[in-house]
Amino acid sequence: MEISSSLKLVARGERPDTIVDVKGVKVGGKKVSVIAGPCSVESRDQILEAARAVKAAGAHMLRGGAFKPRTSPYSFQGLEEEGLRLLAEARKDTGLPVVTEVISPTDVDLVQEYADVLQIGSRNMHNFPLLKAVGRAEKPVLLKRGFGATISEWLNAAEYIIAGGNKGVILCERGIRAFNRITRFTLDIAAVPLIKRASHLPIVVDPSHATGRRELISPMAKAAVAAGADGIIVEVHPHPEEALCDGPQSLLPEELARLMGELRAVADAVHRTL
Amino acid sequence: MEISSSLKLVARGERPDTIVDVKGVKVGGKKVSVIAGPCSVESRDQILEAARAVKAAGAHMLRGGAFKPRTSPYSFQGLEEEGLRLLAEARKDTGLPVVTEVISPTDVDLVQEYADVLQIGSRNMHNFPLLKAVGRAEKPVLLKRGFGATISEWLNAAEYIIAGGNKGVILCERGIRAFNRITRFTLDIAAVPLIKRASHLPIVVDPSHATGRRELISPMAKAAVAAGADGIIVEVHPHPEEALCDGPQSLLPEELARLMGELRAVADAVHRTL
Amino acid sequence: MEISSSLKLVARGERPDTIVDVKGVKVGGKKVSVIAGPCSVESRDQILEAARAVKAAGAHMLRGGAFKPRTSPYSFQGLEEEGLRLLAEARKDTGLPVVTEVISPTDVDLVQEYADVLQIGSRNMHNFPLLKAVGRAEKPVLLKRGFGATISEWLNAAEYIIAGGNKGVILCERGIRAFNRITRFTLDIAAVPLIKRASHLPIVVDPSHATGRRELISPMAKAAVAAGADGIIVEVHPHPEEALCDGPQSLLPEELARLMGELRAVADAVHRTL
Amino acid sequence: MEISSSLKLVARGERPDTIVDVKGVKVGGKKVSVIAGPCSVESRDQILEAARAVKAAGAHMLRGGAFKPRTSPYSFQGLEEEGLRLLAEARKDTGLPVVTEVISPTDVDLVQEYADVLQIGSRNMHNFPLLKAVGRAEKPVLLKRGFGATISEWLNAAEYIIAGGNKGVILCERGIRAFNRITRFTLDIAAVPLIKRASHLPIVVDPSHATGRRELISPMAKAAVAAGADGIIVEVHPHPEEALCDGPQSLLPEELARLMGELRAVADAVHRTL
Repeated sequence: MEISSSLKLVARGERPDTIVDVKGVKVGGKKVSVIAGPCSVESRDQILEAARAVKAAGAHMLRGGAFKPRTSPYSFQGLEEEGLRLLAEARKDTGLPVVTEVISPTDVDLVQEYADVLQIGSRNMHNFPLLKAVGRAEKPVLLKRGFGATISEWLNAAEYIIAGGNKGVILCERGIRAFNRITRFTLDIAAVPLIKRASHLPIVVDPSHATGRRELISPMAKAAVAAGADGIIVEVHPHPEEALCDGPQSLLPEELARLMGELRAVADAVHRTL
Repeated sequence: MEISSSLKLVARGERPDTIVDVKGVKVGGKKVSVIAGPCSVESRDQILEAARAVKAAGAHMLRGGAFKPRTSPYSFQGLEEEGLRLLAEARKDTGLPVVTEVISPTDVDLVQEYADVLQIGSRNMHNFPLLKAVGRAEKPVLLKRGFGATISEWLNAAEYIIAGGNKGVILCERGIRAFNRITRFTLDIAAVPLIKRASHLPIVVDPSHATGRRELISPMAKAAVAAGADGIIVEVHPHPEEALCDGPQSLLPEELARLMGELRAVADAVHRTL
Repeated sequence: MEISSSLKLVARGERPDTIVDVKGVKVGGKKVSVIAGPCSVESRDQILEAARAVKAAGAHMLRGGAFKPRTSPYSFQGLEEEGLRLLAEARKDTGLPVVTEVISPTDVDLVQEYADVLQIGSRNMHNFPLLKAVGRAEKPVLLKRGFGATISEWLNAAEYIIAGGNKGVILCERGIRAFNRITRFTLDIAAVPLIKRASHLPIVVDPSHATGRRELISPMAKAAVAAGADGIIVEVHPHPEEALCDGPQSLLPEELARLMGELRAVADAVHRTL
Repeated sequence: MEISSSLKLVARGERPDTIVDVKGVKVGGKKVSVIAGPCSVESRDQILEAARAVKAAGAHMLRGGAFKPRTSPYSFQGLEEEGLRLLAEARKDTGLPVVTEVISPTDVDLVQEYADVLQIGSRNMHNFPLLKAVGRAEKPVLLKRGFGATISEWLNAAEYIIAGGNKGVILCERGIRAFNRITRFTLDIAAVPLIKRASHLPIVVDPSHATGRRELISPMAKAAVAAGADGIIVEVHPHPEEALCDGPQSLLPEELARLMGELRAVADAVHRTL
């Protein structure tokens, strides 16, 4: 399957599956990984409580935003470096590797000092100077699909990163913009098997941003794993009703624990382990 | 979850899951059903060979079109009543109940003479006289989502049928039109858990029309079952390269057999049986 | 420009512009026509008052629905034959030809007894038995684009009608479903010049259903004429706040009169007359 | 009309129309402005020849890319600073103010040394550090709508710029991603009157990127002006068949000259001057 003729390093060709190793957590291959955490780092107490819940549930990595790309200039923009420090503290406390977003080329060095995976958000998938900057970084990159981007454009964005020298790219499907109004976006699960055929890169799925509804997280996460996803990234918050962003789509800690069990059964059914 | 205030009979409310009984095959409840067959009935040999393959693979119902809604007036329009007779013969031969499309209110009586389930295709979801006509029919209805329709419009279409007196409605998600160009449509799997919460009706998923690509059928079918679908409807053709329509998305008989095993494992993982 | 290889009668080829003559009102060619009226025929007083306002404003044809395709079975479904009789009375009163929708093949004969143009609504663009039925009719057809339909599918729908023997087809762009939420649909004005190059058929534009907002009707109608549309079809209601449907997008009679003047200036700027 | 409750500086309120003055060329108010030029600055000869053609046609500003956001890392990425110098030379030669894109916060100072208007491209509309950087710049900003962005998100992006202190924002509608496949994007002309009601900022329209087809530029440009746009930005290339990008959608110099005359007539029809 050829999706774009300009793909060289990203195309499947004869290459085996790329497995991205994040401090021992392997993304890709037989394993299904779960990355969980709050939308934003809001305070020391909040991120530590969240991290411990993620760890207790058996998930593999902690996510949390320190630099936040927000639609309105008047919304909470993140704790920035203080948020990165708190994430590092949460990692030390729980042993979980940390995934966090970088939104500016000039922040890449700072963010990778603290983070284990550099996230490129959906709104920055076409931010080519940023892609080039993380292409020169030493930490792996989680590259979210632009919600208005084709699969070809997305893989070309990954090509920018690898062409820059960074081979550790994890793709993340997070929903596209279609005419649905009940869900925030439309999760395009067919992207998972398409990517698996067109590329050797691992792909995870974000059901939280895609749906914007807590009650849809579990069924969509299970669907993603059944379709062949290498992992799931979900929002979890110890007190969603107090969250500074994305409360309505955040799981409670006990819901994450239940989800882990459900995903284990589905992973098993498709000959994967979680 | 309220999706539309005009839904009375279709809304979940306090109602238990509706289970539609098609000659002993139950759609809804704990069971996951598989409906398979060619896009069109093309000849006696073709439909009998297809029906036997569907039966041998362990699927539960036979699908096949006798009246075809085709984009071009110059495309094959179906064998019409002759096609219905051949479907009835295939049913007699295999014992499989038959699902076939009706495209005109004036054909409903004819079609239900032969068919066990009346299919309303995606292009007719907003055909209100047809919805009223099948609302007066005695056979259950498989109501496909219009590829440009919201979930609210789709449930209102079901409301037309039930308001007419026919309680046997099976919904079918078959992909919506979004900006993707690699797949024919974009399968909106989130519709499955949304429908399950908003309505008591069973819902099946059609990965064949949604993707238009044979290699995506298995992963998308598994995703649908993992998300809670009550069944799958897939195109199977004994000789896809000779099919009069939808060859590129039709499974081979042996691929259907393999798919049944894969779906069984996923169904089991979500506490369903197939 | 070839949009679909299956188009024979509809394709531009070497054909001159088709001009559809509706009792002396010419759609296509140098003229820009305006069709106006309420969403539904609601009563004798309402349709006569509306028709006189349409006439007084200088518009060329009267529109009004007698058979209404409604999303909910519990919404007003139209006055049916009584509505047709009232439209005929309004025609007699004002001299305006009448455009009204037909939604079932079995109603075509009845509707064409009263109407001057048979409208196929957006939700029925893929209703092939209905397209075949109006293809056998003697009155011209206004064929709205399905809101989920490509231009190729739309022109193939027109091909059904002409292949059936009816050469009087007027196309109507009325908005497609995209991710916009502020407007009801997204008016695809590029369809106008595309159709003009790909086909010889006339095309009009419906800004009322496309936008769902009264304040957008005038700018979008002007845009359509500037892009080369052969006419405009707009909703007008003497008392929008009492309308049984589409009140928020209906112009007041005085707004229609003002719009006529505005469109005349734009038509003049593109070397057309109104 | 309230599109987003988080808009403060951008919202219409009681504010008069903002008129952005670019070295004497006024965008907004009664005037309709035309910005034209090649996709990329490719060479001294090319940009000078293009600039003189733009000037000769009577257009008001020169556009041309020096920093190019390209889908593939292997595509021509622009001449960068050398391109800026050539643009400045073309300005000196013709007197036309220069609009050029900036794609990185760290380039803003460099680009504004040469350019008269800083363009934020569609792919960077959600690049918040870049929005903040141009918010601190001294040159006006042409802010293109993200092709997957809602009108609310777009206006919030403008809010970032004005909140940073830069009041000179010109909005630019350039097409959104919908299911159309014949055109590159779907030009959402309704955005023009919506923006005019919701905001005091001027808005121009880019028919070149929206359609991707030379033959659609003139009708869509006329439509935009008829709908109330304050200007048009089009691609023009002296030798489109040799263009390094966007050849198929670039006008020839003589086509631009003809377009100017056509737009003048439409502008006049809507009581504007060009």
